[in-house]
Amino acid sequence: MSTSSPSPRRVAIVGATGAVGREMVDVLHRRSFPVAELGLFASERSAGRTVETPFGEKTLVAFDVEKVKGYDIVLLAVSGDFAKEHAPAIAAGGALVIDNSSAFRYDDNVPLVVPEINAHAMGDAKLVANPNCTTAIAVVALGPLHKAFGLKRVIVSTYQATSGAGAEGMAELEEQTRNQLDGKPVVNSVFRHPIPFNLIPQIDAFQENGYTKEEMKVTWETRKILEIPDLPVSCTAVRIPTYRAHSEAITVETLSPVTPDAARAVLADAPGVVVKDVPADGVYPMPLNATGQFDVEVGRIRTSLIFGDHGLDLFVCGDQLLKGAALNAVQIAELSL
Amino acid sequence: MSTSSPSPRRVAIVGATGAVGREMVDVLHRRSFPVAELGLFASERSAGRTVETPFGEKTLVAFDVEKVKGYDIVLLAVSGDFAKEHAPAIAAGGALVIDNSSAFRYDDNVPLVVPEINAHAMGDAKLVANPNCTTAIAVVALGPLHKAFGLKRVIVSTYQATSGAGAEGMAELEEQTRNQLDGKPVVNSVFRHPIPFNLIPQIDAFQENGYTKEEMKVTWETRKILEIPDLPVSCTAVRIPTYRAHSEAITVETLSPVTPDAARAVLADAPGVVVKDVPADGVYPMPLNATGQFDVEVGRIRTSLIFGDHGLDLFVCGDQLLKGAALNAVQIAELSL
Repeated sequence: MSTSSPSPRRVAIVGATGAVGREMVDVLHRRSFPVAELGLFASERSAGRTVETPFGEKTLVAFDVEKVKGYDIVLLAVSGDFAKEHAPAIAAGGALVIDNSSAFRYDDNVPLVVPEINAHAMGDAKLVANPNCTTAIAVVALGPLHKAFGLKRVIVSTYQATSGAGAEGMAELEEQTRNQLDGKPVVNSVFRHPIPFNLIPQIDAFQENGYTKEEMKVTWETRKILEIPDLPVSCTAVRIPTYRAHSEAITVETLSPVTPDAARAVLADAPGVVVKDVPADGVYPMPLNATGQFDVEVGRIRTSLIFGDHGLDLFVCGDQLLKGAALNAVQIAELSL
Repeated sequence: MSTSSPSPRRVAIVGATGAVGREMVDVLHRRSFPVAELGLFASERSAGRTVETPFGEKTLVAFDVEKVKGYDIVLLAVSGDFAKEHAPAIAAGGALVIDNSSAFRYDDNVPLVVPEINAHAMGDAKLVANPNCTTAIAVVALGPLHKAFGLKRVIVSTYQATSGAGAEGMAELEEQTRNQLDGKPVVNSVFRHPIPFNLIPQIDAFQENGYTKEEMKVTWETRKILEIPDLPVSCTAVRIPTYRAHSEAITVETLSPVTPDAARAVLADAPGVVVKDVPADGVYPMPLNATGQFDVEVGRIRTSLIFGDHGLDLFVCGDQLLKGAALNAVQIAELSL
């Protein structure tokens, strides 16, 4: 970013009515992104509807690849199939396309970027992938720890919010919790099983190795973002009845010796991280506090009982719709200013 | 247990009005324990009140150590301090005392028993400790895996229900969830932070090493029950908004090579375990199904991405008030028949 004010950009959001799309609009405003024009694209069904935004009242426009091509920056908050079909054409037209789906994340020619960690990977790419939410939240803590102590192995257990299944996921949690409390039948349509007062140890489809795709995304994407192609990363991904902040219990083995104090010092200086680690005072990461915040909370930092002075246990919590999606996408857009 | 019917025993439950005490009554009945007489002891405050039980209407009796001494078997569902004060005297009087608190679990002279795993440890002890709920649920799966493949390291992340804080914990979850949905103030008195749609990565007090006492119980008690004094066991214990079944994501490193199929075969034959592991059909352990069940559900069994063919990831779920407390206590009592 130059010292003079960057010139305003024409920004399009495709999938503007979804949970992530709506957050993208808010984040652009909260971060004072220089928006010359904001185009909100949605399905035919939503087109013509007006929505209130921090940028004023906007009319939703039916997606049209030619119209979208006219923007400088295009944020895609759509399905992988949709992204696969349209992203390359939009990028070829000259716009910077930032895709929130998994469609291009594993393509060697497409950078997968968490700006605090690997901004350099972006280069002059016109198509950039936004990582999986669980991965984005983990790597803002794992990246600085890797730089300081070297990562040898990473084990993650997640506590994932319903927002990972979009606005419908959050609505199902609220409505069905109400039903259960009122003694009415609890039904599930977004989730495979009822989510109120329950948990579901499945997110996304199962792979041949017994892990879910969500779990393997954490492995594949952590390796790519941290540029450690063979790093052993294992994840158990679990949906729990929370709204929009993901938590993760993480065990790391390090190459160099590490102490909790040294790790805290490294993380205190790390961008995108806020250390919440005064356990005696009840200060540790929690969805209650991380919701709506840009920074990822990191705490419960302690010497691993498994890996001794070459290991740490920690607990992280970040807003799934922000660092896990919309915020990271806007931060990628900021790299182009 | 002899082949002839065991002679009925006089059974006392101390702390009969709590969540665990009430479950003990039910479990005695569900398992057809030969009860000659059932004494329900509680605080002065509750004394004189009558309660409906599967053994008929009973009148709560104020705790009196001399009265309790007259029973054959005494199940303690009381605080550690209370147990420490009274258990030795009751046991010295000749009754078999089974204590659900942590008061005696780390005493070398007191057996810590999960009957499926280490019934032999009971010997002719008159005071027996019932393990921590998280540990009891984990070891019914870990024990058979250790016997078959040898355990080298164990990493646990928990998803613990509010019942771990007693009936008041479950009530606070229900009432405060209702308040939150109704837009009323959410207050917390049982838990350190609001629990509705949140999680709390603290259970019990913090120790000097940064782990909570709950987390260290899993380390200490797993070692004692499995009789592997130096086994590295690490735990992150997290309270989530569920009612009464604890779940745990467990990573194990084994001494011998292990496959998911071999582990499933071992666990299918293990007492106290039900294998719920058809992920493609959405069959895996969940609080929704484990609640009210005696068996611990085990699933999501897969080769560890960290420890390769010498490691497994698995997910377990068990009723905290049953295998985690009342059931295990009654099973210990059954060993004496």
